[in-house]
Amino acid sequence: MPVGHTALCDLLPVKGVKLAAVAAGIRYQGRNDLVLFELAEHSCCAAVFTRNAFCAAPVTVARQHLAAQTPRYLLVNSGNANAGIGETGLADARKTCSLLAQSTGCDAQQVLPFSTGVIGERLPVDKIDAALGNAIAALSEDGWNAAARAIMTTDTVAKGVSRRIELEGCQVVITGIAKGSGMIRPDMATMLAYVATDANVESGALQSCLNRATERSFNRITVDGDTSTNDACVLVATGVAGNPVVTVDSGVYAQFCDAVSEICLQLAHLIVRDAEGATKFITVRVESGRDATECLQIAYTVAHSPLVKTALFASDPNWGRILAAIGRAGIPDLDVSRVHIYLDEVCIVRDGGRAAEYREQDGQRVMDKDEILIRILLGRGGAAETVWTCDLSHEYVRINAEYRS
Amino acid sequence: MPVGHTALCDLLPVKGVKLAAVAAGIRYQGRNDLVLFELAEHSCCAAVFTRNAFCAAPVTVARQHLAAQTPRYLLVNSGNANAGIGETGLADARKTCSLLAQSTGCDAQQVLPFSTGVIGERLPVDKIDAALGNAIAALSEDGWNAAARAIMTTDTVAKGVSRRIELEGCQVVITGIAKGSGMIRPDMATMLAYVATDANVESGALQSCLNRATERSFNRITVDGDTSTNDACVLVATGVAGNPVVTVDSGVYAQFCDAVSEICLQLAHLIVRDAEGATKFITVRVESGRDATECLQIAYTVAHSPLVKTALFASDPNWGRILAAIGRAGIPDLDVSRVHIYLDEVCIVRDGGRAAEYREQDGQRVMDKDEILIRILLGRGGAAETVWTCDLSHEYVRINAEYRS
Repeated sequence: MPVGHTALCDLLPVKGVKLAAVAAGIRYQGRNDLVLFELAEHSCCAAVFTRNAFCAAPVTVARQHLAAQTPRYLLVNSGNANAGIGETGLADARKTCSLLAQSTGCDAQQVLPFSTGVIGERLPVDKIDAALGNAIAALSEDGWNAAARAIMTTDTVAKGVSRRIELEGCQVVITGIAKGSGMIRPDMATMLAYVATDANVESGALQSCLNRATERSFNRITVDGDTSTNDACVLVATGVAGNPVVTVDSGVYAQFCDAVSEICLQLAHLIVRDAEGATKFITVRVESGRDATECLQIAYTVAHSPLVKTALFASDPNWGRILAAIGRAGIPDLDVSRVHIYLDEVCIVRDGGRAAEYREQDGQRVMDKDEILIRILLGRGGAAETVWTCDLSHEYVRINAEYRS
Repeated sequence: MPVGHTALCDLLPVKGVKLAAVAAGIRYQGRNDLVLFELAEHSCCAAVFTRNAFCAAPVTVARQHLAAQTPRYLLVNSGNANAGIGETGLADARKTCSLLAQSTGCDAQQVLPFSTGVIGERLPVDKIDAALGNAIAALSEDGWNAAARAIMTTDTVAKGVSRRIELEGCQVVITGIAKGSGMIRPDMATMLAYVATDANVESGALQSCLNRATERSFNRITVDGDTSTNDACVLVATGVAGNPVVTVDSGVYAQFCDAVSEICLQLAHLIVRDAEGATKFITVRVESGRDATECLQIAYTVAHSPLVKTALFASDPNWGRILAAIGRAGIPDLDVSRVHIYLDEVCIVRDGGRAAEYREQDGQRVMDKDEILIRILLGRGGAAETVWTCDLSHEYVRINAEYRS
């Protein structure tokens, strides 16, 4: 069960987006594993993709299609990543797009393909083909909750968030779903997220909004530091709500961006809470650094440290491990005598050494909680950054050692 | 039991070096935890230390003393790292040097202090003081094996290597001991190594030899990527063997360096074999890269990947995880279609995709072994680098979660 779990609520439909989730039998039996999104004509679509050099075939194809035409369909399968099999994988991804295009009368380049699952096995195109008719027939604006479940791989819960905002007097909806149960497991290539709104947003503004939102959400979480070959996040704006078009110069642009960012951040936190083996949800905040880069460098070094993560799992206020991780982060001329470290509100390190007032039971009290803030003050500037992570448990090793067997 | 374990042999005495191992009761009961080295007058001493910004007090003091005078004594305790406690720690480290200097008639700056153990607790100077008399009385050239045992913390076996070489017709001995059971555990701040020879070596040549040796040995191993606050490696040359002095221009300099490097590499491998929870000894070799930097970047990304390490623990030939780790290593313009990956002699990835001839049972056969070579060819240059690591097991999590409790 995810850390601080609350059940998925009924996600709000987004006017102009229809969805279907069906069972194609790609890898899983007795559950849906294929999701089809149909986007209203003239919808805008922005996307960000994995930076892994070994990106999966659907990532390459989706990038090409997005550059060529305005998407009408997103086709997502779970259970097979279609990664690591060269030209064959690209041909398979393109084939699924062509098959859908034939059945719906659109151009193949108006279909964006997405896959998540095991690397290195061929995509069963015939199984997807056989399920497309059912998917098209089942398209409905109420398909969000079913879609959130169908894109899961080793996720233990479906992940989704909805909210309503008002833009210049017009009610609009933003709904998002995501899957991912480690920052990434290349084996079950992880993170996929789909966010849609019926707001009317100019395409450049939509892409810059998505860049900004992912930078502060999905790009700020880590479970194991292993970046997937298949990561993708899509933001769709159907424009059906009829608000005056949002551009980067609009008065409401910042408000819209904040709302999308909030949705992405909530989805990102849901991923960390459901991370493989996670028993704790950890916020690492680095403050008073010279710039964002060094704050992130320290935050990630702490968040990735196996020694910090195992201490968190054990609820052990072993502050020496946090201090040592900061020390090895490679920050030029870091003056350690200015560093302070807090666990929640408890100061454990002051001026680079154990705080005089620190008592082990105070650290223990914080460590016993399942949501913990590690706050690190560098005392050398005005920059601050936050990343979110989890602990490293026996269960993480078990899940990842036993996954394919 | 370490991977491929063989028991510690009788280490060869080094003329000009006397050692003693005694029980000071610093943390452990019923075992030795304090080691004293006495070096013959005019011995040369080279050293390398941790690059962790939060370096321990003895590291700071040893650096200062080494710069000021020629060392006559090395004083090493296990059980307490004397790290993370600010000025008090520095004063404590200096105090132990003064106490030893008083008893032996040398200058306090001729003593180099070293500590390994828990971070954040005060060094019990009185206990060390009480044991110094016994240590001085016990000094003997035959103390190497006892010293190797006394510097252990969570190591499961003592680590040492000896060899004899001939330098310009003169027999010399090189003996080394080390402790460490993860690349580092900041909690039991890890890696200490002491190598001594009776060869006559000029001090600049000795330091450059040590730099070269550590760069290819201790600096090429990783268990968990966590660099200690207390790492130190010392190379002593007593000169008692009477060979013509070795300088960087000597014909035998390369031979001497190779011998020291070989000792350091063997000690480094012993550390990986005894790494916390390790069940496999893994060599990651990256070839045909543009330069050493990118080869190391990929090798370390693979060696640190929790997903690769858990797959190794499970003996799962899950090559997709290796491929994904290479892809996320951040190498500019890496052409993935030129990448090949081998497990030992089995080609699993050719031209960036699953090798046509690869059969799962061939990969499984390699994975079932406890010593495995992961060989990665980048196909873009002539550089090659090797690092050594181990798998990530349940036992690693248990050891590091339960350590302080």
